[in-house]
Amino acid sequence: MRPSGRNTDKMRAVSFERNVSKHAEGSCLVKFGDTHVLCTASLEERVPPWLRNGGKGWVTAEYGMLPRATGDRMRREATAGKQGGRTLEIQRLIGRSLRAVVDLKELGERQITVDCDVIQADGGTRTAAITGAWIALHDCLKWMEARAMVRTERVLKDHVAAVSCGIFASQPVIDLDYLEDSAAETDANFVMTGSGGIVEIQGTAEAEPFTQEQLLELMELAKNGIAELVTMQKDVVAGPL
Amino acid sequence: MRPSGRNTDKMRAVSFERNVSKHAEGSCLVKFGDTHVLCTASLEERVPPWLRNGGKGWVTAEYGMLPRATGDRMRREATAGKQGGRTLEIQRLIGRSLRAVVDLKELGERQITVDCDVIQADGGTRTAAITGAWIALHDCLKWMEARAMVRTERVLKDHVAAVSCGIFASQPVIDLDYLEDSAAETDANFVMTGSGGIVEIQGTAEAEPFTQEQLLELMELAKNGIAELVTMQKDVVAGPL
Amino acid sequence: MRPSGRNTDKMRAVSFERNVSKHAEGSCLVKFGDTHVLCTASLEERVPPWLRNGGKGWVTAEYGMLPRATGDRMRREATAGKQGGRTLEIQRLIGRSLRAVVDLKELGERQITVDCDVIQADGGTRTAAITGAWIALHDCLKWMEARAMVRTERVLKDHVAAVSCGIFASQPVIDLDYLEDSAAETDANFVMTGSGGIVEIQGTAEAEPFTQEQLLELMELAKNGIAELVTMQKDVVAGPL
Amino acid sequence: MRPSGRNTDKMRAVSFERNVSKHAEGSCLVKFGDTHVLCTASLEERVPPWLRNGGKGWVTAEYGMLPRATGDRMRREATAGKQGGRTLEIQRLIGRSLRAVVDLKELGERQITVDCDVIQADGGTRTAAITGAWIALHDCLKWMEARAMVRTERVLKDHVAAVSCGIFASQPVIDLDYLEDSAAETDANFVMTGSGGIVEIQGTAEAEPFTQEQLLELMELAKNGIAELVTMQKDVVAGPL
Amino acid sequence: MRPSGRNTDKMRAVSFERNVSKHAEGSCLVKFGDTHVLCTASLEERVPPWLRNGGKGWVTAEYGMLPRATGDRMRREATAGKQGGRTLEIQRLIGRSLRAVVDLKELGERQITVDCDVIQADGGTRTAAITGAWIALHDCLKWMEARAMVRTERVLKDHVAAVSCGIFASQPVIDLDYLEDSAAETDANFVMTGSGGIVEIQGTAEAEPFTQEQLLELMELAKNGIAELVTMQKDVVAGPL
Amino acid sequence: MRPSGRNTDKMRAVSFERNVSKHAEGSCLVKFGDTHVLCTASLEERVPPWLRNGGKGWVTAEYGMLPRATGDRMRREATAGKQGGRTLEIQRLIGRSLRAVVDLKELGERQITVDCDVIQADGGTRTAAITGAWIALHDCLKWMEARAMVRTERVLKDHVAAVSCGIFASQPVIDLDYLEDSAAETDANFVMTGSGGIVEIQGTAEAEPFTQEQLLELMELAKNGIAELVTMQKDVVAGPL
Repeated sequence: MRPSGRNTDKMRAVSFERNVSKHAEGSCLVKFGDTHVLCTASLEERVPPWLRNGGKGWVTAEYGMLPRATGDRMRREATAGKQGGRTLEIQRLIGRSLRAVVDLKELGERQITVDCDVIQADGGTRTAAITGAWIALHDCLKWMEARAMVRTERVLKDHVAAVSCGIFASQPVIDLDYLEDSAAETDANFVMTGSGGIVEIQGTAEAEPFTQEQLLELMELAKNGIAELVTMQKDVVAGPL
Repeated sequence: MRPSGRNTDKMRAVSFERNVSKHAEGSCLVKFGDTHVLCTASLEERVPPWLRNGGKGWVTAEYGMLPRATGDRMRREATAGKQGGRTLEIQRLIGRSLRAVVDLKELGERQITVDCDVIQADGGTRTAAITGAWIALHDCLKWMEARAMVRTERVLKDHVAAVSCGIFASQPVIDLDYLEDSAAETDANFVMTGSGGIVEIQGTAEAEPFTQEQLLELMELAKNGIAELVTMQKDVVAGPL
Repeated sequence: MRPSGRNTDKMRAVSFERNVSKHAEGSCLVKFGDTHVLCTASLEERVPPWLRNGGKGWVTAEYGMLPRATGDRMRREATAGKQGGRTLEIQRLIGRSLRAVVDLKELGERQITVDCDVIQADGGTRTAAITGAWIALHDCLKWMEARAMVRTERVLKDHVAAVSCGIFASQPVIDLDYLEDSAAETDANFVMTGSGGIVEIQGTAEAEPFTQEQLLELMELAKNGIAELVTMQKDVVAGPL
Repeated sequence: MRPSGRNTDKMRAVSFERNVSKHAEGSCLVKFGDTHVLCTASLEERVPPWLRNGGKGWVTAEYGMLPRATGDRMRREATAGKQGGRTLEIQRLIGRSLRAVVDLKELGERQITVDCDVIQADGGTRTAAITGAWIALHDCLKWMEARAMVRTERVLKDHVAAVSCGIFASQPVIDLDYLEDSAAETDANFVMTGSGGIVEIQGTAEAEPFTQEQLLELMELAKNGIAELVTMQKDVVAGPL
Repeated sequence: MRPSGRNTDKMRAVSFERNVSKHAEGSCLVKFGDTHVLCTASLEERVPPWLRNGGKGWVTAEYGMLPRATGDRMRREATAGKQGGRTLEIQRLIGRSLRAVVDLKELGERQITVDCDVIQADGGTRTAAITGAWIALHDCLKWMEARAMVRTERVLKDHVAAVSCGIFASQPVIDLDYLEDSAAETDANFVMTGSGGIVEIQGTAEAEPFTQEQLLELMELAKNGIAELVTMQKDVVAGPL
Repeated sequence: MRPSGRNTDKMRAVSFERNVSKHAEGSCLVKFGDTHVLCTASLEERVPPWLRNGGKGWVTAEYGMLPRATGDRMRREATAGKQGGRTLEIQRLIGRSLRAVVDLKELGERQITVDCDVIQADGGTRTAAITGAWIALHDCLKWMEARAMVRTERVLKDHVAAVSCGIFASQPVIDLDYLEDSAAETDANFVMTGSGGIVEIQGTAEAEPFTQEQLLELMELAKNGIAELVTMQKDVVAGPL
């Protein structure tokens, strides 16, 4: 029995609120249950130095957490003087995940930075962030398309979404909340495209090592969950902004 | 004529949404028009080293802005490696303003940190932050009162609220939005208590020096505006959480 | 009765020693009683990146304190790895105050940095710094004028000087020293021009909120004090370098 | 055809040199071909603050690269002022991998830090580091056992080793060197125990998303490779120090 | 011919002004010509962690330069975020030099920090700093002696003073100013005690390597110069504070 | 009697292993007994900003220590966020020593950075580093000569080598190991050229001040030791790479 009472293959209530920022070219407030992440896509007409004059653009991500997004207040990274290892790891993952479905040449020499800021955390912030960041990126490209800068479907080759799965009380379960995550024996994050390709898989044994069979069970859950998320993304972007 | 079309003595639409955080002991999403600040109050059962064993508590504040809260994306302070001068100045102001209406002895040896994070900025973030922070602090004290830790009305001696006023197109106006703020000749922030006492006044000549008469005109606007804000605070905390 | 024995409207002994630096284009050691601040103005033939090719110059300030300028030794900011919030706040204030009386177009694409380093502190370091920085800036411009680079009176449109006032033992008093400052109920810093315009006003309730009447009493003291300081500045720069 | 001429399932020459440090309680210079990592295990009789008085110990890792370990000289992280995201990610992985086979209660309230410093890099530094770190940790425990502090086999429950696999020129291959790594379509790192349990799996699509079938092919290669590495570890620690 | 017109064995005008700080337990403004260094000694009733409960005290030094102490304005180390290599090297040298003549046991478990801040630089700042720091330290001990905390002559076993010598235009010369220092072929700093013992010698070939004979010539100059400095120190501390 | 049993004028076993890095243009693993330093020379076709377009090159050095190079594990400088004072002092010394024998004009507008990383420390790391760095620099120049970029003997005008000497148990001894270094009364580092010129001399009294006679005794030891080191350097570079 999961603390949340959910079935093992049941994700939390997922929602996407688009266009939540007065300023950003694309934005999305994504909720996976009580995990709320604000994703904003910012366009700049310049690329990092190492890409200049190469005819290619860049998509990158930054990740942050408000100090009291969590149960105990965490020290603000700006006062600590640096981003922690976990933050850097997550924002590198989000960036790679987005770039996996972007044609950087079609983007042209521009950079889009997707900021994923966790307003409230209850487990699965990185998977919610990736899933919401895709919406923000999509809407940024639509904004550019309206100005004849790019063709969205040429830049954005596919959907990308993510979910965490884990072994909790010896059962493979999907979309762990904080309580489940803290007690899980194994924790795995899956990032997949709309066409079912795997972009990233990160599995970690928290207590005991896990087996290939368990990994495949988790992947089965993830495939279905991500398919659901992609369907939701499609519905959302089909609607009015 | 103000860009916003408002009368010179008309504040923007102000709203307070309480209890917006699953985790914080007190929280408030305050909106002054398009300026949105999330205020969370976090209780800790310890005080800074220099206060230990003195029988007094501490109330402090931290301030931050999401990178795309503004028209152009700003660098994340966590990647810059430090909080900027403007950030430090604002969070010191918020802290002083709150402490002006708190009896630290009645609080006991505990610290309350109010984080004010700007989700969206359109001028007046510091005044919105102070006004919303009071609600978050109040609700944190109520949370403590429910656990028999303090008596709210003994700790929180009065209301505190803030508004900016300025001289725009030669007219004294209240509650400047970003467009007005950028073009104002003089900009002043007022922090006052519910009983009309002045807690802090900061006036700056952006272009030409200003006169005492102009300062008094701005103060007159501020007094009325802050009285309105305090009335709203009273209504809000009188309602259910 | 003030600890210093001064009348409520009596400033400390103020002196300006010009040309105290072998290297700086303009310099002044300003003393407000036991508060001693060394101000040096340094000319550079370049402006910050965001001003380039705009035909305008820039005047900025930096503020520091020697570790043992104070009663207890303070940690050196260079070893702490950053300037503290108070330092940043003060140096931003000094810079704004100077720019309020400078025509940046007349300066041309050059930057003048006024360093204000507190050699000894006894309250009122920021107001002494502003008042002395004006002398250093003036002498730097004279140095430039001697080289046919600018016309001083075109760049420097007016005097600027500053003084702190506060309510001490229920009495409005001017130019608080450290003992008074520590015990003041209200503390306000005024920055005004030679023609009596207000450049900056910062009032803070240290204990109880203050009233508009009290603020006006403090301002009355400040006006007179700043008029005295401006007269002294005039005398000083009328003399030989 | 691999640039190295190796068969797809052929690892590079692997060697372990134990006891390479005069000072460390355990040490190992591990080589995976031209990738050379110096692993030293350092014992301290104290644990991090959050573990104190809990009766448990801690095993952690740090990772670094000499500036010219790579083809182009990289900036020294000590001069950059912080460890980069990649470094933090890798050292967190090494620490988790070692802790997966350690009984922290049996270790007692002590900390072992395994430093993994890359002397020369040619791809696969993190997998070589994990594999060599196990030897250094083992020898540190033996050192402690010789002083009657622990029983090695009680603390160290199993072997742990790691290898990278990837899809290169459409072929699944094991133990990628730098040339292969740079051109691989998919890159996955596997960390497994001596008994075949999975401790960590990290798969990343560098170009196109990959399929579950491909992941399983990579895992098959990894299983065999890690089994070889574990056999080598056993041989090595069975020999004299 | 030296730019300064001095004879090769002629030091610049040296002066010591004691008791220049209202706050410090001991202080001295030392001038070697146009090089002016403010030295303040601060007493604290605690020692660094690694000395606690050992019955010994500590004497340490910090060194800084005001930004416009030099011909071109240098970046403030507090804004650079760290002390530079030259600064660290010099403050370590000053600390070692002072400790060479202090009996740390006689000091008791206390720390004296001597801050040496260069107000104006014209070559030889480190040697002036050491020579003036001795006065500040002496006067701090006298302050303590007046409070029956120590016996000065038991703590301070000897004088210490320093001078730079160098080979300028093929001639060994003493006490180089900035012009000479910039053009010197060899530069050496000597730190010696009142009884003629060598505490520290640092010689550097700026252009061509130098010979042992040249080093001995420099040392001969240094011995005489330091003897003069020690005589001046004696005169100064024999006078009234 | 020295702890090592060596005669007072007997250096430790010294060895140089060239070409130890797959990537660096020149490299050398130098051993002075149990002190092992890896020196790599990296060529870049650019110079620091302040040298641009001056027709001259630059040679610089960086120094680091692996955390467990020492008896107790030291904190990694990359996690401390900066290089310590000792590190900066040593790398400045290595750079100066190398530049003393290099003709920067003959090098052309290029920079060679010699990284000296201490793999294992047992006293004398800086002198071993200088002596080995010369080999790495030489081999880097040979690499360039093979590509017709420079003529080695024109760039590298002489040998440079270094050794420490000290007074241990009242006896002047050469090449102190850690045990001797910790207990030495006086410690001096000598850097000399192949032709016997002095490049740098740094002598420090650790306990009692020392005399000129003692300094000359140490220098006598150093001259002979450095002559031996230079002979070894000559033999080594005369051999095959």
